[in-house]
Amino acid sequence: MLRFALLGAGRIGRMHAANLAAHPRASLTWVYDAVPAAADEAAAKHGAKRAASVEAALAAKDVDAVLIASPTDTHVALITAAAKAGKAILCEKPIDLDIKRADACWAEIAPLKPVVMIGFNRRFDPSFKAVHDRAAAGEIGRPEQLIITSRDPAPPPISYINVSGGLFRDMAIHDFDLARYFLGDIVEVSATAGVLIDPAIGAAGDIDSAMVTLKAKSGAMAFINNARRCSYGYDQRIELFGEKGMLQAGNRRATTVTFNGKERTESHDALLHFFIERYREAYDAEVDHFVDCVEKGTTPLVTFADGCEALRIADAALESVKTGRTVRLAG
Amino acid sequence: MLRFALLGAGRIGRMHAANLAAHPRASLTWVYDAVPAAADEAAAKHGAKRAASVEAALAAKDVDAVLIASPTDTHVALITAAAKAGKAILCEKPIDLDIKRADACWAEIAPLKPVVMIGFNRRFDPSFKAVHDRAAAGEIGRPEQLIITSRDPAPPPISYINVSGGLFRDMAIHDFDLARYFLGDIVEVSATAGVLIDPAIGAAGDIDSAMVTLKAKSGAMAFINNARRCSYGYDQRIELFGEKGMLQAGNRRATTVTFNGKERTESHDALLHFFIERYREAYDAEVDHFVDCVEKGTTPLVTFADGCEALRIADAALESVKTGRTVRLAG
Amino acid sequence: MLRFALLGAGRIGRMHAANLAAHPRASLTWVYDAVPAAADEAAAKHGAKRAASVEAALAAKDVDAVLIASPTDTHVALITAAAKAGKAILCEKPIDLDIKRADACWAEIAPLKPVVMIGFNRRFDPSFKAVHDRAAAGEIGRPEQLIITSRDPAPPPISYINVSGGLFRDMAIHDFDLARYFLGDIVEVSATAGVLIDPAIGAAGDIDSAMVTLKAKSGAMAFINNARRCSYGYDQRIELFGEKGMLQAGNRRATTVTFNGKERTESHDALLHFFIERYREAYDAEVDHFVDCVEKGTTPLVTFADGCEALRIADAALESVKTGRTVRLAG
Amino acid sequence: MLRFALLGAGRIGRMHAANLAAHPRASLTWVYDAVPAAADEAAAKHGAKRAASVEAALAAKDVDAVLIASPTDTHVALITAAAKAGKAILCEKPIDLDIKRADACWAEIAPLKPVVMIGFNRRFDPSFKAVHDRAAAGEIGRPEQLIITSRDPAPPPISYINVSGGLFRDMAIHDFDLARYFLGDIVEVSATAGVLIDPAIGAAGDIDSAMVTLKAKSGAMAFINNARRCSYGYDQRIELFGEKGMLQAGNRRATTVTFNGKERTESHDALLHFFIERYREAYDAEVDHFVDCVEKGTTPLVTFADGCEALRIADAALESVKTGRTVRLAG
Repeated sequence: MLRFALLGAGRIGRMHAANLAAHPRASLTWVYDAVPAAADEAAAKHGAKRAASVEAALAAKDVDAVLIASPTDTHVALITAAAKAGKAILCEKPIDLDIKRADACWAEIAPLKPVVMIGFNRRFDPSFKAVHDRAAAGEIGRPEQLIITSRDPAPPPISYINVSGGLFRDMAIHDFDLARYFLGDIVEVSATAGVLIDPAIGAAGDIDSAMVTLKAKSGAMAFINNARRCSYGYDQRIELFGEKGMLQAGNRRATTVTFNGKERTESHDALLHFFIERYREAYDAEVDHFVDCVEKGTTPLVTFADGCEALRIADAALESVKTGRTVRLAG
Repeated sequence: MLRFALLGAGRIGRMHAANLAAHPRASLTWVYDAVPAAADEAAAKHGAKRAASVEAALAAKDVDAVLIASPTDTHVALITAAAKAGKAILCEKPIDLDIKRADACWAEIAPLKPVVMIGFNRRFDPSFKAVHDRAAAGEIGRPEQLIITSRDPAPPPISYINVSGGLFRDMAIHDFDLARYFLGDIVEVSATAGVLIDPAIGAAGDIDSAMVTLKAKSGAMAFINNARRCSYGYDQRIELFGEKGMLQAGNRRATTVTFNGKERTESHDALLHFFIERYREAYDAEVDHFVDCVEKGTTPLVTFADGCEALRIADAALESVKTGRTVRLAG
Repeated sequence: MLRFALLGAGRIGRMHAANLAAHPRASLTWVYDAVPAAADEAAAKHGAKRAASVEAALAAKDVDAVLIASPTDTHVALITAAAKAGKAILCEKPIDLDIKRADACWAEIAPLKPVVMIGFNRRFDPSFKAVHDRAAAGEIGRPEQLIITSRDPAPPPISYINVSGGLFRDMAIHDFDLARYFLGDIVEVSATAGVLIDPAIGAAGDIDSAMVTLKAKSGAMAFINNARRCSYGYDQRIELFGEKGMLQAGNRRATTVTFNGKERTESHDALLHFFIERYREAYDAEVDHFVDCVEKGTTPLVTFADGCEALRIADAALESVKTGRTVRLAG
Repeated sequence: MLRFALLGAGRIGRMHAANLAAHPRASLTWVYDAVPAAADEAAAKHGAKRAASVEAALAAKDVDAVLIASPTDTHVALITAAAKAGKAILCEKPIDLDIKRADACWAEIAPLKPVVMIGFNRRFDPSFKAVHDRAAAGEIGRPEQLIITSRDPAPPPISYINVSGGLFRDMAIHDFDLARYFLGDIVEVSATAGVLIDPAIGAAGDIDSAMVTLKAKSGAMAFINNARRCSYGYDQRIELFGEKGMLQAGNRRATTVTFNGKERTESHDALLHFFIERYREAYDAEVDHFVDCVEKGTTPLVTFADGCEALRIADAALESVKTGRTVRLAG
């Protein structure tokens, strides 16, 4: 039984709390949040205790691992502290908004050989994983083109935009990680972006619509499109085109029901609304994988280095938008 | 070049006229209709002549074949006359509403060994034919269950209902023929029916909704559902379930476009409206097959006997509704 | 917290045990099985105790309700005993294979006004329920035709066939209940059946393929097709055709992945294998509904009387196959 | 009746010949081809005459219009000659491989005010046109993102690659035109490309795989992906994402048949093989539109200027690949 302290009991933290509590080989023992009432509520719901501080949580005897779901700007400090305390670490994405801080963090903790996994949940989506695994098994031959559609139902508040690091570091970073998951190291990044949805996002210095093209070391190409608002819901699709075939993973709905009427036929229902619903199985599988890795001493599927690489691509995309040039990465 | 006289220039006759005119190995030379103006119009459009009478059309030297698209109650007389005149005959369904008249017709003309094909166009639909041919090639093993959905967009006028012979002989007869096409001889018929759509249809002595179950000599079963009104258009689907697989043929639309919006996703457009649009390729292929058969001296896919058998099943379905019993056929 | 004794710890009992254990307002306290080791295993897994006998389980203080998942021939006795012990009862379908025994059971326990729910899980499937609720809300106008496809992946062993009560009472009974769920009281039953899949099933006196047509008191019609073997998996579909539209609920898969290759395109994966996987959410929702009903004192969606009616339709279907006649029910 | 001379009787010329012959308001009177036997064959099939030279065809009294389907390097000369002869001109894409020659051609003929239409057939595809028209009618609000998938089943021979002008000018040019059709003037072009399919294509100085991002003057973005080989056939899809909805146009097949078996379900058949089959209706509609424009004196949907703009985007894409920079266009 792997005993977890949850650091951060906001929306995604509460979801993780429920998953940990329901997991057959994990348990939630402590919860810390900067807002004590939030920690209390999550702790009470799952039979855990509230920790008075991060330090207290890390010092507790009945903690083997931490799940970090606090605001991004606390991640590096918490990862560092947890690594020093000898805990296994599952940290929500992104590691940080500043690649230098992320690199420095790793430089500091690497000698401790911590088990760190970054929460790129989409790698654990059953459909995306099936595309990955079937391609890896050779079903479509050499992969040549990857198309990722990733559109959010509605923009976050401007207050969040202001601290988010921008569309590339906050939202597209998932897609950059997926590109690496499917195609391996990325060596070129080219991006086009704009403010088509909400001028307030532009006024905040961010973009709300983007198209990014990547080239992998293998020569394969990837395309990502992002929008901060999607009228028909959370649009999350993958297309992997290879030498011998093409695999697609589509959107998900709560039912299989279709309607036929005077003006439309075989009309499906709305999509699952947002990440908590759409990626429910993925979040479960992510925790399950992490528990497995800690138990067996194996390397998690998404390492600290993976978290850094996705961030580096995000930075490159931003640079490409600013300069109008393709940005090369070390790969 | 097979030269046709068209007998009957109503809606379906005009469609056949255009198909004959466009066919590379057929031509339309004469048109007869009880309404001379209708014949004139069709003849003028396709460079044919108006025949003053059926006899004149059959006596013309430049006529090798007749296409009969006149009202059902004239079919037997026209088939008989054309057979005696030595013409090849393509006659719209049904042969007649009275199986005794149909049988008597055949008894009279059989000695002349006429080439007669009945216009069960659905056997020539590319999708239905593909299901048939793939099943015949063994793709799904032994066929066990056939499901036919056959719903018209809107009921015909009551004046037509009155002379139609009723839903089974007029509308479901296509489906009875399809059941024989897919499963061979039918030996049992059981039907349930009602008036759910328009009480005026009931007042006219007919039904507007029906479910029919058939058993083939092979043991395979078929189910047909019919409705005289379908809010979402002309619903024409086939499902053939076999030992090793299942094949389906679905509805058709003018485009492949789908819409995604707030309340619905992957919503398709309306179906092709009615038989002329839905079965355009089938009508073309039907004429093409008939021309082929006449040229090569081969037996058409749908014989006079097939026309009689479909009518016998329609009669049995009606009897089953009236008696509440399964009706056995010679098969 | 509703405390359950589970009676019967076979495959479906074990699934229910896990659902009860995971339910936020239910708990599993006791498990009884004729095979003590089976009860031990289920009890241990979920922190419950093994009951030495049904009587012991019913006598335990920490039991508010029983979930009966034992062999069919024990249902009536267990329902009776539990009702007498004042427990709320959730019993797997069917109540019994003999409608007389079921009716007698109710006659005996009705005065006790027990809370009894029969486990027709399909009413709780999110997609089937959505079709029901949307139709009830008027989306398709008056329902006219219901088409149920219900095919199992593979036949059970002959030893099971021998005690199953036959295809209609064992397998189609779910579909008969669904017909009542969608269309209300059934007044006519007509069935065609055969042995197309395995002669051993015929030798055991049963059928393996069937088509059943029902007529509801409302005039609406229903069609059910059943097969004991389906090469492509567990085929469970619903089509509800109404005046203003048509709703369909389709099959389910583990992923949304489609493959495009040389010989096929947009090819989906295999279906969810069998009832435990296909109806997982339905089983959850069923228990949830039952807990709700007990807590709030409301009548369950599926009553003892519903269980009897489905069995009466099954008997009528069997009679129809034997006599070749439509069988009328009181409705 | 608009009388056509066909200049060029290769594969696409023969298809046009058949369309012209079948068109109710057009006729094919003369055919010229550098290979007299090819002209003879096409002429004989459709009752036209073979022209001994282009000059002879243009001098014939019974010629109102020319359809140019000869090799690309002859287009400019033929357009010029036909314009001087006062004929209406429907010319296959591209106008030329050299934008300077195309511009010079227009400078020369513009004073003659010729009716010239360039054969970007895809604008006339019923599904693409429906997406365009529905978006124009406001169904999805302001268009923000356009995704075009355009993959050929197999590469042309290297001998063709050598004279094709390269993937962008030969193949993607259709997609560049579509981007303008959907989004209007293009102001930025960024492209990534590679040789992933056949090294011989690389050796010939061309690329076989490409991803192009465009930005329109409106701010909307477009993405095009191209591959010279696609294992599952001719992949031609459009996705138009807007403020209020998203429209997609999918691939087409010869039938609606789907197969369900042990390893796959709802599996569709192969796609229509290549442009002649896939865009059959589009080619018909293109000719129909041209005939309409000439008859009514209206401007064709695809002008000479449109042909030049698509070529300018192709040149910019090539430049972007070479320089790694986004190329700006006048728009």
